[in-house]
Amino acid sequence: MSKTQIHQQVLGANAEYVKHFGNKSELALPPARQFAILTCMDARLDPAKYAGLAEGDAHVIRNAGGRASDDAIRSLIISHKLLGTKEWFVIHHTDCGMELFTNDIIQNLLAKSLATATVDEKGWRNVQEEGGSDEARFVNFLTIKNLETSVSEDVQRIKSHPLVAKDIPVYGYIYDVKSGKLIEVPQVN
Amino acid sequence: MSKTQIHQQVLGANAEYVKHFGNKSELALPPARQFAILTCMDARLDPAKYAGLAEGDAHVIRNAGGRASDDAIRSLIISHKLLGTKEWFVIHHTDCGMELFTNDIIQNLLAKSLATATVDEKGWRNVQEEGGSDEARFVNFLTIKNLETSVSEDVQRIKSHPLVAKDIPVYGYIYDVKSGKLIEVPQVN
Repeated sequence: MSKTQIHQQVLGANAEYVKHFGNKSELALPPARQFAILTCMDARLDPAKYAGLAEGDAHVIRNAGGRASDDAIRSLIISHKLLGTKEWFVIHHTDCGMELFTNDIIQNLLAKSLATATVDEKGWRNVQEEGGSDEARFVNFLTIKNLETSVSEDVQRIKSHPLVAKDIPVYGYIYDVKSGKLIEVPQVN
Repeated sequence: MSKTQIHQQVLGANAEYVKHFGNKSELALPPARQFAILTCMDARLDPAKYAGLAEGDAHVIRNAGGRASDDAIRSLIISHKLLGTKEWFVIHHTDCGMELFTNDIIQNLLAKSLATATVDEKGWRNVQEEGGSDEARFVNFLTIKNLETSVSEDVQRIKSHPLVAKDIPVYGYIYDVKSGKLIEVPQVN
């Protein structure tokens, strides 16, 4: 089967990366700088660039919203217990897609079609209405109403988790997609 | 409270990034190149570098192992349904930490202590034995026995998910940490 343009481009970029791989083959498995970042999958975010990470430095966990889901916490537990990270950052960002819909909205859209929806000033709309699934009713999409709140809630959820050591500092930040700046979200504790 | 060295370094690196942010403030929310990568949180992996991504190009989802957890699939569903990605890569890697333990091992370690364990030729060992939690019995840590199998299973789990559109190609790869190379895992289907 012939490869798509994107598939070819990714393999082409990878071939270039391999050419200049240098001594990165020497890097150890545990993160050298002993910290982890939990952030959003958003395409505009490059945590290695915005937080100054070289290969080997830090764990990076990403999902829709940068939320402290059970799976993100699974990853953080492994990160500390077996791989020695000692400080964690939770970083959400301005203009996040997770602020643009609710569980109801995406569940209703998916119930009628799995294909990509469109959005305009009237809201989200399916472009076709066939082949949907009611399974979405069972998924919590972890949408965001307010960024300070989502960061604070996620920091607290991590800190209060029974499998998270109490001496791990968890910092909360919002990344501003208009400037690249990390803005601290003070934690109440 | 004074900031740790890591905390200061991250903010310092971010200040440098902001200085050279340029026209990235113009980037649109949906990924310009309309694809997503699911890969491991491992510190040695930089998907932007190994797959040639600029800010704005593609969604990047990362967790311990790069596993197709429910949360990773939540993220992929949002990525396609609302933000228009059309192709997905699942990329695990050689020398993955997830190959070095089992659910039993980490559950037993956490039962006695939440602090970082050590490892040698005899296996994992707690350095202290207090403050553990049996909660780990309820967590599936999604460890890996064989990389080809984990990639294939995760590709199949995604493709067969009731909320994933059938026309999305899902490519399976293993990243070689010794060379930086992406090695294809042929899919049976």
